[in-house]
Amino acid sequence: MENGHGDALREEEEEDEEEWKFGPSEDLLFASRISIRGVLGQVMENVVDSHRPPVPLGHGDPSVFPCFRTASDAVDAVVSAVRSADFNCYSPTVGLLSARRAVAKYLSRDLPYELTTDDVYITNGPGYPFYEARAAFSRLEARHFDLLPNEGWEIDLDAVEALADANTVAMVLINPGNPCGNVFRKQHLTKVAETARKLGILVIADEVYDHLAFGETPFVPMGVFGSIVPVVTVGSISKRWVVPGWRLGWIVTSDPNGILKKTKENFKIEEGIWRGTVRNEIVEGIKGILNITTDPTTFTQGAVSDIIKNTKEDFFRKTIDLLRETADVELKLSLLNGIENDVDFCCKLAREESVIILPGSAVGLKNWLRITFAVGPSSLEDGLGRLKSFCERHSKAE
Amino acid sequence: MENGHGDALREEEEEDEEEWKFGPSEDLLFASRISIRGVLGQVMENVVDSHRPPVPLGHGDPSVFPCFRTASDAVDAVVSAVRSADFNCYSPTVGLLSARRAVAKYLSRDLPYELTTDDVYITNGPGYPFYEARAAFSRLEARHFDLLPNEGWEIDLDAVEALADANTVAMVLINPGNPCGNVFRKQHLTKVAETARKLGILVIADEVYDHLAFGETPFVPMGVFGSIVPVVTVGSISKRWVVPGWRLGWIVTSDPNGILKKTKENFKIEEGIWRGTVRNEIVEGIKGILNITTDPTTFTQGAVSDIIKNTKEDFFRKTIDLLRETADVELKLSLLNGIENDVDFCCKLAREESVIILPGSAVGLKNWLRITFAVGPSSLEDGLGRLKSFCERHSKAE
Repeated sequence: MENGHGDALREEEEEDEEEWKFGPSEDLLFASRISIRGVLGQVMENVVDSHRPPVPLGHGDPSVFPCFRTASDAVDAVVSAVRSADFNCYSPTVGLLSARRAVAKYLSRDLPYELTTDDVYITNGPGYPFYEARAAFSRLEARHFDLLPNEGWEIDLDAVEALADANTVAMVLINPGNPCGNVFRKQHLTKVAETARKLGILVIADEVYDHLAFGETPFVPMGVFGSIVPVVTVGSISKRWVVPGWRLGWIVTSDPNGILKKTKENFKIEEGIWRGTVRNEIVEGIKGILNITTDPTTFTQGAVSDIIKNTKEDFFRKTIDLLRETADVELKLSLLNGIENDVDFCCKLAREESVIILPGSAVGLKNWLRITFAVGPSSLEDGLGRLKSFCERHSKAE
Repeated sequence: MENGHGDALREEEEEDEEEWKFGPSEDLLFASRISIRGVLGQVMENVVDSHRPPVPLGHGDPSVFPCFRTASDAVDAVVSAVRSADFNCYSPTVGLLSARRAVAKYLSRDLPYELTTDDVYITNGPGYPFYEARAAFSRLEARHFDLLPNEGWEIDLDAVEALADANTVAMVLINPGNPCGNVFRKQHLTKVAETARKLGILVIADEVYDHLAFGETPFVPMGVFGSIVPVVTVGSISKRWVVPGWRLGWIVTSDPNGILKKTKENFKIEEGIWRGTVRNEIVEGIKGILNITTDPTTFTQGAVSDIIKNTKEDFFRKTIDLLRETADVELKLSLLNGIENDVDFCCKLAREESVIILPGSAVGLKNWLRITFAVGPSSLEDGLGRLKSFCERHSKAE
């Protein structure tokens, strides 16, 4: 769920159904091909140099580097849960009560009101696909608005208003942003909430990178504005604890007015604005999808409470110091010989220099590159050196 | 993925698309409602007695009972993987190489040929939904064939032939069966393979309960017949190790002739029979869906090899001795007062006696009951006693 754009999701009219070009298997292959893994896989197939180890600057996963080892308290919590034998069983589809309660308490620290256990659904953590791919898979139309690079990658809210129509149900924002690394200011988020309220749509806030903010702007969760507009927040322990392989995340509703719990039957139009949202019966939809998908490992859920409670501030501070934002670099194709686009650049770089960089296309930024700095310092130096050689060799300038 | 019927899956023609009654959210709610969890949830809401603890005879999860504690070697393997810090990272979408290799070796013990690492895809383990629900979600038509209760629940292969048409791509069988507890004889499986070959369809074999066979018929994996017909096998450590909460399973292709790897482009019709199968490019489809879904916890994958290698035969023997098949009981409604059907029976039983039994409807057997014996002996006695009182109280007899 990493995306360079914002997305506005729009429910297709049933009458439009015959317009869908793809059968189920074509939808799937399309979704798979445009996933970050699909594109990275394509780039990595080009690595042929058996003498130099490849330098991975394309991934979003620093956990393979020893300096990013997770907190020992978190490991102890999981070990204790496994040894207890209390968590070998299936979990409830919405997640273990203790995990839901712990996440509600954890996130409430940064909100002006208390989340309840019922607001939290424990998940496998986000996958890799584009929101666009997932939406296509469920036959939802995604419309794109731009982030404005010259205004700190803020959302072009005029574009959002222009894109939305009566079938629009939600807008998606990613904060802190991936791949752009931006953190939205509180004033901007207020405007986002007001725009969404005006349009009668909910906000889906992907806050997987919460608390990994490096610059001057402090991270503010979108849930803060839950009384202006209902917010569905997606989060995880993957990034802050550097354990993406533990597969533990959550979906949280920040909705003090209970808009997302309303159904067609019991809903009265309030100022006429929640039409689109309510038609979807969001909370029932979340429970429904959790009923037919697999749950996160039960013992990891059982450990969540202790993972959150026992991890020291020191660990988070050390990680922040080590992590640096990814760099997004725009590719000036006019300066390079024989490079067609960002994917071509990355495939040739992989073949000639065994350096893996993610083509921007995979995250919605065609002809940009996303370079991960979250590797060990010597790997980074080595990789950037090879990247420099590659660019010099392919440069049009004499 | 528990089912009282077999299913034949049939790909919908694209022209048929407008016939689908449901939009995406209706598909989802339908799928969720007919899932085992959905039905069990409905039954459990009826428990009102706060004095007597509920007796759960409706689940398929004995792991909550101390006598079914998993092997300590398996726990040690997971603890060691967590402590190693080698498995905090994302895993490849197809699974960790070591896990794929270990599962290939494990399953090959019972096959006439060696599976390769490439035949194995590591998954989250099966979920609960009906195959029917999952098929509906992907707009595949499921047609039902019966199992014959008077012939040891064998598949009615004449019915399979009658149901299949040019769009049929696969048949699903569950062996050992859930909820019927039957184990298919080798001769019957040979006939299944020959029928599928004749129809040009593949066999999906749900062998989640492999090696949990109690009767005289030994368990034979469907993969044994992979050279007659391509087989996709679904399996897991959930049942044999009694750890459904660990969420670790696999999809395996038993396909020594490489039929499932062929694509539209490179496929030559062989005896005209693999039409339907090949149109789906099965292996690409499996990889595609793994690219857009979340992986099992990486450290559990890292532990698989040791879990399989280190667990002693003693553990498996002890589990088999403790486990008994679930009982399927047909409900004679004519003998009962004021009971409408199996769901009504189970809801009233939950309300009056706090005993949870799964209505057969949830597994495709309307007006049957599925009673789990995999609980501690005293719970079982208590539960069956309360069930008896309930039946006596509602009996029409004088």
